[in-house]
Amino acid sequence: MRKDSTATAVNNKNNNNNNNNNNNNNNRDGLITDVEEKKAFFKVINSFRCYGEYMQQNYWKPRAIKWDTLPKEQQECLPWYKSYLEEYRMCILQNAKFLNDVADHAIYSWGYHDEDNDDMEMQPSISDMEKTLSLFTQIVREWSEECKEERGISRKLILDALNSYKDKENTIILVPGCGLGRLIVDLVCEGYQVEGNEFTYHMLILLRYVLNSGLTINSIKIFPHIHTFSHFKTHLEQLKPTSIPDIDIYKSIMSDECKGAINSINTGSFIDLYGSNSNFIRYSDFYSIHPRITRAENTSSKNVIITQFFIDTGENILEYLESVSNCLVSGGYWINFGPLKYHFEDSYGAMDIYQKDVYSNGQEYNRHQNVPLRGLELSYDDIINVSCNGRFNFKLINSKFDILSTYGKNRNNLFNCAFWVMQKKR
Amino acid sequence: MRKDSTATAVNNKNNNNNNNNNNNNNNRDGLITDVEEKKAFFKVINSFRCYGEYMQQNYWKPRAIKWDTLPKEQQECLPWYKSYLEEYRMCILQNAKFLNDVADHAIYSWGYHDEDNDDMEMQPSISDMEKTLSLFTQIVREWSEECKEERGISRKLILDALNSYKDKENTIILVPGCGLGRLIVDLVCEGYQVEGNEFTYHMLILLRYVLNSGLTINSIKIFPHIHTFSHFKTHLEQLKPTSIPDIDIYKSIMSDECKGAINSINTGSFIDLYGSNSNFIRYSDFYSIHPRITRAENTSSKNVIITQFFIDTGENILEYLESVSNCLVSGGYWINFGPLKYHFEDSYGAMDIYQKDVYSNGQEYNRHQNVPLRGLELSYDDIINVSCNGRFNFKLINSKFDILSTYGKNRNNLFNCAFWVMQKKR
Repeated sequence: MRKDSTATAVNNKNNNNNNNNNNNNNNRDGLITDVEEKKAFFKVINSFRCYGEYMQQNYWKPRAIKWDTLPKEQQECLPWYKSYLEEYRMCILQNAKFLNDVADHAIYSWGYHDEDNDDMEMQPSISDMEKTLSLFTQIVREWSEECKEERGISRKLILDALNSYKDKENTIILVPGCGLGRLIVDLVCEGYQVEGNEFTYHMLILLRYVLNSGLTINSIKIFPHIHTFSHFKTHLEQLKPTSIPDIDIYKSIMSDECKGAINSINTGSFIDLYGSNSNFIRYSDFYSIHPRITRAENTSSKNVIITQFFIDTGENILEYLESVSNCLVSGGYWINFGPLKYHFEDSYGAMDIYQKDVYSNGQEYNRHQNVPLRGLELSYDDIINVSCNGRFNFKLINSKFDILSTYGKNRNNLFNCAFWVMQKKR
Repeated sequence: MRKDSTATAVNNKNNNNNNNNNNNNNNRDGLITDVEEKKAFFKVINSFRCYGEYMQQNYWKPRAIKWDTLPKEQQECLPWYKSYLEEYRMCILQNAKFLNDVADHAIYSWGYHDEDNDDMEMQPSISDMEKTLSLFTQIVREWSEECKEERGISRKLILDALNSYKDKENTIILVPGCGLGRLIVDLVCEGYQVEGNEFTYHMLILLRYVLNSGLTINSIKIFPHIHTFSHFKTHLEQLKPTSIPDIDIYKSIMSDECKGAINSINTGSFIDLYGSNSNFIRYSDFYSIHPRITRAENTSSKNVIITQFFIDTGENILEYLESVSNCLVSGGYWINFGPLKYHFEDSYGAMDIYQKDVYSNGQEYNRHQNVPLRGLELSYDDIINVSCNGRFNFKLINSKFDILSTYGKNRNNLFNCAFWVMQKKR
């Protein structure tokens, strides 16, 4: 296990957090000078800082106003409501404090300063704010005792599928869309060499906080359920705190018994980092000079790829399939678990695709304007067919459809998940 | 059973479809002269007429454009995709034809003419269009064989709860939010006297078409699943037609064996039609001169009220409780089934409440400006507590939380439903 080179669970040298930059060899100083990157970073930081105000303005205040307009006889029906609202506001403030700590840690960890933020004045969008709110669901899903059962559904399927690997220390697993890192840590504890990949600063900032800030078991108390008002058995359920993390992460992966390791957590688009060099680069080549070196290094380099709640997140699933196929070794396994709830299905957004030819060092090529984000939402059978009956060269080993799973243990969010294991033909 | 006065299943005389008017005694000619009402009607009619264009523009076309921008090697992975898109477009056209028939029937049925529409030029909003799309899910839920099992979950609970009524012909059941009428028809077939209440023209227009246009079993073929692209086992599932209705409605309720009857389907806000006269009227008094007569007639007049997928639809659940309590007879039952997924939970909308005093014949009173729609989302326990421990005077007979139900058999929509039976204390 490579744990000698750093005092933190994740090796900062390998943990390149530049959203637009996929070159693992860049140093941190190089990143800090990048203005676009810095803007993206501080936009997210500011969405963390604005959480308390946003929640009070949009979640607490409308309900307090509504309460005040109720006729007296209606107010008398709910004698507890006013103190409930006050308690609700206290939960917001506690969550805001947590996110402030995360923001402080991120600024230090990325090597920025608060003054950098003042210079930028980056205003978070509503979408930035809603992503920040959703982080509470994410952290509960991954790092709380209360979602142990929920995690168990996919964990058992995944570990069973990995059963054939006896030489775990030489088995390299890639987890694209690794989120807040729980799957990575669990796989490391099982003895594997694990590489993570994540795209958004929302996740990356909280991921680094969870992995690197030395949290002990249940040392943080948050109120993850206050962002929804539906489906509660009692209103106390909504205000119930959750403690995180449920394990001591640092101890778990640094112990002598743990033979696995986090090799790196690479930041950027999965397609741009792990796709084939015969395909164009979409997002990541604007600031990097050698994307094709990264891609070449990643080609046929992973024994296993695990996509978990990931395969439906992109605007072109075929690019995901190409990238999975590209970076697996011959005979390697692709394990998938998650819903087919295509993120861009309802989006009216469109994008200009400035694809770059990797071989001409970033020259623009084959540009499309206004390509809709929605579209190409393949069904379960379609994905399996296209993977196994054509150039992607997979063989289906195991599969299951319609596995019901909660999402952050919320009664509102129930997903029908798909599971499959495919092997890249030799 | 009152079925002599009309050749249609629902008595048009009683089926007052004026959205803003709750006076059952209004005649149809009276309604036709009402300009606001006519505008609301034709806005929905036009959303039916625009369906085909809207779907092609927003659902089909972006996907066709995206397909065209794919690299050739990606297109070759999905040799079926282009003909799938063509077939998808045919499904849109078929659905559009169905909605056009419904619109034609509505114009005839309400006594309007197409020229009235030309005069209005009412443009449907995006929200009108999305409601029109959602009607396909609604009609499948209520009137297709494929959702029989889904309906069965609530039907069994409801019929078991009604078991104590032996004199069915003298048992009057009210169904607020009766939608497309399936529950009403099922209860009539069981022998009860049933009264429906519905608020929106979207539902009312399709409801009247289903009940009154003389449909025979499976005579209509629609494609209800084309409005979503997620969670399909195969893409053929998305394009699968559904036949409706699964029963011959006219024959079912007009047969000699059927001892029940649809007493009336009253249009308007549940609160304004069935609330207590000691409360204000909110929506319905702008054009009616005698709302308090309707309310007085409805007070203590129903033996049973069944709210199904309804209790979470309002912006103030306490007003629903007041109205349920108001129009039940002493000893009457309130049966509820459905999720607590509050419709306005995420709404940023606000409304000015122009409440009217029923006793001063519509005089404005106690006005609040900008009252948020979100708020007052009571939990399951809260609803039961407030119903049973205070002025609403209910006794809890039976209850269950967390009953899982699909919604239109779609894998995307899974709801945790609550069920309860309460008795209004004597």
